[in-house]
Amino acid sequence: MENFQYYTPTKVIFGKGTEEQTGELVKAEGCKKVLVHYGSGSVKRSGLLDRIYRSLDAAGVDYISLGGVVPNPHLSLVYEGIELCRKENVDFILAVGGGSVIDSAKAIGYGIANEGDVWDFYDGKREAEGCLPIGVVLTISAAGSEMSDSSVITNENGWLKRGYSSDYSRARFAVMNPELTMTLPKYQTASGCVDIMMHTMERYFNHCDNMELTDGISEHLIRTVMKHAKILMTEPEDYNARAEVMWAGSLSHNDLTGCGTDGGDWSSHQLEHELGGMFDVAHGAGLAAVWGSWARYVLDAAPARFAKFAVNVMGVQPGSSDTETALEGIRAMEAFYRSIGMPVCIRDMGIDVTEEQLRELAEKCSHFGGRTIGCIRNLDRDDMYQIYRNARGGEA
Amino acid sequence: MENFQYYTPTKVIFGKGTEEQTGELVKAEGCKKVLVHYGSGSVKRSGLLDRIYRSLDAAGVDYISLGGVVPNPHLSLVYEGIELCRKENVDFILAVGGGSVIDSAKAIGYGIANEGDVWDFYDGKREAEGCLPIGVVLTISAAGSEMSDSSVITNENGWLKRGYSSDYSRARFAVMNPELTMTLPKYQTASGCVDIMMHTMERYFNHCDNMELTDGISEHLIRTVMKHAKILMTEPEDYNARAEVMWAGSLSHNDLTGCGTDGGDWSSHQLEHELGGMFDVAHGAGLAAVWGSWARYVLDAAPARFAKFAVNVMGVQPGSSDTETALEGIRAMEAFYRSIGMPVCIRDMGIDVTEEQLRELAEKCSHFGGRTIGCIRNLDRDDMYQIYRNARGGEA
Repeated sequence: MENFQYYTPTKVIFGKGTEEQTGELVKAEGCKKVLVHYGSGSVKRSGLLDRIYRSLDAAGVDYISLGGVVPNPHLSLVYEGIELCRKENVDFILAVGGGSVIDSAKAIGYGIANEGDVWDFYDGKREAEGCLPIGVVLTISAAGSEMSDSSVITNENGWLKRGYSSDYSRARFAVMNPELTMTLPKYQTASGCVDIMMHTMERYFNHCDNMELTDGISEHLIRTVMKHAKILMTEPEDYNARAEVMWAGSLSHNDLTGCGTDGGDWSSHQLEHELGGMFDVAHGAGLAAVWGSWARYVLDAAPARFAKFAVNVMGVQPGSSDTETALEGIRAMEAFYRSIGMPVCIRDMGIDVTEEQLRELAEKCSHFGGRTIGCIRNLDRDDMYQIYRNARGGEA
Repeated sequence: MENFQYYTPTKVIFGKGTEEQTGELVKAEGCKKVLVHYGSGSVKRSGLLDRIYRSLDAAGVDYISLGGVVPNPHLSLVYEGIELCRKENVDFILAVGGGSVIDSAKAIGYGIANEGDVWDFYDGKREAEGCLPIGVVLTISAAGSEMSDSSVITNENGWLKRGYSSDYSRARFAVMNPELTMTLPKYQTASGCVDIMMHTMERYFNHCDNMELTDGISEHLIRTVMKHAKILMTEPEDYNARAEVMWAGSLSHNDLTGCGTDGGDWSSHQLEHELGGMFDVAHGAGLAAVWGSWARYVLDAAPARFAKFAVNVMGVQPGSSDTETALEGIRAMEAFYRSIGMPVCIRDMGIDVTEEQLRELAEKCSHFGGRTIGCIRNLDRDDMYQIYRNARGGEA
């Protein structure tokens, strides 16, 4: 078992009607003025935003609002939020939405608590020294940003999608009512489930074979999400399935499923970030589209690990070799992705990626040759190109 | 799934050599003077205490010491600690030890942060409004107090053993080096493993049958502890087994295995508290001694739950009825307890409990008829008497 740190200070308030507690939770943080940050009009139409405002009013909390966050949240709105918060002396940000809204809130929080251009952190130029405190009312089970230390922002100047992680950005509280996710479209629900599974799968694929407690938690978490994702495809208002998926979403990305490992692989996330930046695809769908290609490409570096995954997660009968078992597991996962309407290649998302675009994706993912990715197998620009190419699907 | 809150702010620093970071961790808390609290001479003899002092010195942290905490920690030392800390203006307590030392530190912390008699909180008379911040260097895997909100203190005046829980007492950090537990005697290691298992089993036995993520995590955690407890009986210096058990100890009592349930049963703990108060037995051993008697007594109230436990945790083949399967599971758990040298009745601990003592145990456990316990089946004084009686073992 590897040494590790585990730090999850976010107070989770989980269950039906919990959003009514938002005002009191914000008040308990002792802040003077709150930015309520949200995305599209759905939180307006559903009446959620009004309920949150009423809860803040009832607690006597002063607030302003900024909506308009889009999936793969944009740096331009982050800049706008920073300027607004500075002008209005905001000292707490309440994110009402999913991962994109939370990530945008974190980026605004970094921007206020630090001098200079907030993009520097995402661009790897320097480290943040603080973040304005964040609270969350979660409406989408997917990104796990409500308990994670990470955020991902897209810079429209070059459509670069970059992540930044620090404990400063961990939310003070997360209000999680599974009912709020019941109206999500089927495709977005499925994409969220893939995202959740992948946060644990990225950690699971490592070279540490002696972390039984973490491995078993991870395997069970993935199986639980798969089972309830299938239920939600036909019963979108099944409260219990929504609840299992929502709680799995937080546990999958609060580092629990990485404790004692070497941190995991994360190649699929890096590969998808560029796809998301270039084509604005749903994150989970993008992950499903590249995972099989990645898995087959790196399989020989850790056949026993992939075979364990195949048996313990996918229920595959062990074959005559680890590689055979592993390949059967990859096929089984792809079959699962298809069963919930998710892609298993880029073309499945309706994108005919050109040879030139494949090369551009590999350029960007390798930071123009400046970095390699992955721990199961270390991947350079040429490897990335091959994986993107194999993930293209069908004939060009 | 039931609504729940989950709050685990403790920063875990886990692995080999991590105690060297203690000074810097304490310093980062910004405190002026630290009480180093510990138990017997074992942390002196092992050199651990000297390493901690050197680490505090190197970080420029001022400190005083108070040792002498015993298993089932005494209220009198808590009072002594409160007086000492007040006199010396201590503003942070570093517990170097296992659950008893941590619990004693928490009680001292309550005593300093609140007016009046600290026993009031344990006696259920009023609620604490704060606690001095606590840090932990863990040397025993068992109580889970390093991440829990609970503490248990024994009042020598009447030998009453009482628990008190509040988020105020959650440790700021927990340094967890599994190597520090390698020299624990076999009996104490086994007793700790039972304690760990029981923290999850208490939560697992509830009337919520729709919490799949939590149930699976719980089942895997218990299986993992059982497997590695057996390894440690012959290989006490197996680092990985020590690490699995240590991390399980924290996860088992930081509320993870109770999320979405109704809170769990906790009768065995209440029953054991009185045993521990009267006979000063090791907590885990006391739990093992009463669990089978409790389980058989309440089984009819939740046969399906006990059968699920039997199949998923104990690997029992389903029998012709849930009750049959459940009984086989209870027998299997008792066989496991025996296999690691743990008792399955009170007599196994070398105690011939008298009829009068049985009645006294039930009196105390029921707070002299003033309370009932348990959620699987609600138990009154007469029920407690019967369970103690059935747990006595053999003939009187």
